[in-house]
Amino acid sequence: MKEHLLLTPGPTNVPKQILEATALPMIHHRTKEFQAILERVFADLQKLFCTKHPVMLFAASGTGAMEGSITNLFSKGDTILAFSAGKWGERYRDIAKAYGLDVKSIEKPSSEAFSAQDVEQALKGNPQAKGVLMTLCETSTAVTHPVKEIAQVTQKSGALLLVDAISGLVCDPIKMDEWGVDVVVCGSQKGMMLPPGLAFVAASERAQNAITKSTLPKYYFNFADTIKAIKKSDTAFTPAVSLIRGLDVALKMLLNEGMENVWKRHSDVAAWVRKEIFDMGLKLFSKAPSNGLTAIVMPEGIVSGNVIKIMRDEHSVIMADGQGELQGKIIRFAHMGYACTMNDAKTGMNAFKDAMAKNGFKS
Amino acid sequence: MKEHLLLTPGPTNVPKQILEATALPMIHHRTKEFQAILERVFADLQKLFCTKHPVMLFAASGTGAMEGSITNLFSKGDTILAFSAGKWGERYRDIAKAYGLDVKSIEKPSSEAFSAQDVEQALKGNPQAKGVLMTLCETSTAVTHPVKEIAQVTQKSGALLLVDAISGLVCDPIKMDEWGVDVVVCGSQKGMMLPPGLAFVAASERAQNAITKSTLPKYYFNFADTIKAIKKSDTAFTPAVSLIRGLDVALKMLLNEGMENVWKRHSDVAAWVRKEIFDMGLKLFSKAPSNGLTAIVMPEGIVSGNVIKIMRDEHSVIMADGQGELQGKIIRFAHMGYACTMNDAKTGMNAFKDAMAKNGFKS
Repeated sequence: MKEHLLLTPGPTNVPKQILEATALPMIHHRTKEFQAILERVFADLQKLFCTKHPVMLFAASGTGAMEGSITNLFSKGDTILAFSAGKWGERYRDIAKAYGLDVKSIEKPSSEAFSAQDVEQALKGNPQAKGVLMTLCETSTAVTHPVKEIAQVTQKSGALLLVDAISGLVCDPIKMDEWGVDVVVCGSQKGMMLPPGLAFVAASERAQNAITKSTLPKYYFNFADTIKAIKKSDTAFTPAVSLIRGLDVALKMLLNEGMENVWKRHSDVAAWVRKEIFDMGLKLFSKAPSNGLTAIVMPEGIVSGNVIKIMRDEHSVIMADGQGELQGKIIRFAHMGYACTMNDAKTGMNAFKDAMAKNGFKS
Repeated sequence: MKEHLLLTPGPTNVPKQILEATALPMIHHRTKEFQAILERVFADLQKLFCTKHPVMLFAASGTGAMEGSITNLFSKGDTILAFSAGKWGERYRDIAKAYGLDVKSIEKPSSEAFSAQDVEQALKGNPQAKGVLMTLCETSTAVTHPVKEIAQVTQKSGALLLVDAISGLVCDPIKMDEWGVDVVVCGSQKGMMLPPGLAFVAASERAQNAITKSTLPKYYFNFADTIKAIKKSDTAFTPAVSLIRGLDVALKMLLNEGMENVWKRHSDVAAWVRKEIFDMGLKLFSKAPSNGLTAIVMPEGIVSGNVIKIMRDEHSVIMADGQGELQGKIIRFAHMGYACTMNDAKTGMNAFKDAMAKNGFKS
């Protein structure tokens, strides 16, 4: 069977050397050998997240880490401003609701990005707000929100800025400490080039202070215990040993390339994909396109699923359909992580053009 | 570097064919290919858990699944009888406390097992109890509790029986439906021969009814959503694809051998280890020894850590020290999962005898 090129917004293809590291003979997690791995991984994660604060590591999908960021920082009835313009913004909002927070839902058409002014205005209307929930890259629409500018607003307020960067980190720049972001959440199967199963949360000093005051119930995603363990290069619960050994290799690869170079690679490939799309006479869905994926609007009469099927069956290229209301209407062409090279983007673009032509499209 | 023989109570060694399956090229989780794997895995898990009810699957360590079994079945203030005679019983109890349940803690000296009478008596004293928290194999002490007899008591009561079988399942028999157990929790890195990172929960009809009434907050470990997804051979959140491909192979290996044979293998090896220990003139810590591991009491003047160090450095055999108050006083010699063969047990026993002799022990 031919290996598929996964141009999906996670899971992405995983480099062979990472897969091999995950398949090394098992070692026990309470040993010096594994402690040395954890020590290195925690230090490298800080570089990846551009922070000197602890980056927590959980065996979970990204949603688990999002939940932890809510249950560890807030208390019942706290006011939260949830900015959602797509499926993932909605998820963050819904988690806050599930835990009885006073959630003010701020929405926008799904093709648009929130601005710093939107956040400023919402904070003015809700000065009691304890937190702002934001998405770096909204994977359902390929919209990137201006986290840097938004952080300038939240830094001057009493509200913490929590950013779901699950699909954004590595692809779109995010400099946690420099920008003043309080919480950055990530998952393993996107820009980090790993299989799914690991989730990450970094917490600023303001966020760590909030942890000491939160009264929401939690156990597995307890941040205080997790941070305490990190200080001893340990984990609160049995870690996902094999995935962490893969993470160790992934972090080396990314940091050897250098984050500025990694971001430029994503930015360059994304720009090329967008230019090709424009040259075909097609439109982007997102008004603030992401570096990690491009959402292409299907022209009248062409249904995404039919294009995706030909790419898969005839080219072994996998792209994603739109979600919810956008199903059938957009194609999400991801260029994140290991699949973010000009070669892979070209392979994807050739498959896309062929599949579009076979669906009757003429540019 | 020589590969270590992990005679620790998890993680255990992982068979090569399972490691290889976890390192296969990544596939997307919303594809027919992965759906076919999930369909098979969910069916095989039912055989392993001896149940016709759904067996849920989470990217998490076992503690996450324990937490889910509390947050999905109960509501604030519900009375819970937490039976603890060791670290893992205490963990279950502590999770229930963290979520504001009315927890009645029933304790025993850590070398002893609870009896059905203990449970019957506690239920008589607390007829309002909604749940009983029990451990199949208490990994910290190698005590196995008589879940079959206990289930006969809980079945006649209004209380659900929740069993932490994280290290017990596969090693000690547990027949969920036949015995009438309501919830069985497991983790991947013990008898199931996988790397850590997957957690499992099976829920009986009574337990599924309780799910519909529970008002405790939850999101990532939401059982209703998870069970709904299983019916479509899907998962509620991005699954740990690579570990699940390993699980697929592990389940095939175990079910090909047959659960009765798997249990007999564990029982035979455990009996042999115990006999050797007795022949050395040593004592077991547990009054109700487990099939999955043996806790050996260190004689006067010998500290576990010194014996463990020689086994590790000179024999590449890893065993575990006692936890908490038992540190230095017992050695936990595991024979679970892939390491449960007479050959591995003999290798372990030779290392143990040599290390004991080098610590001045004469049988």
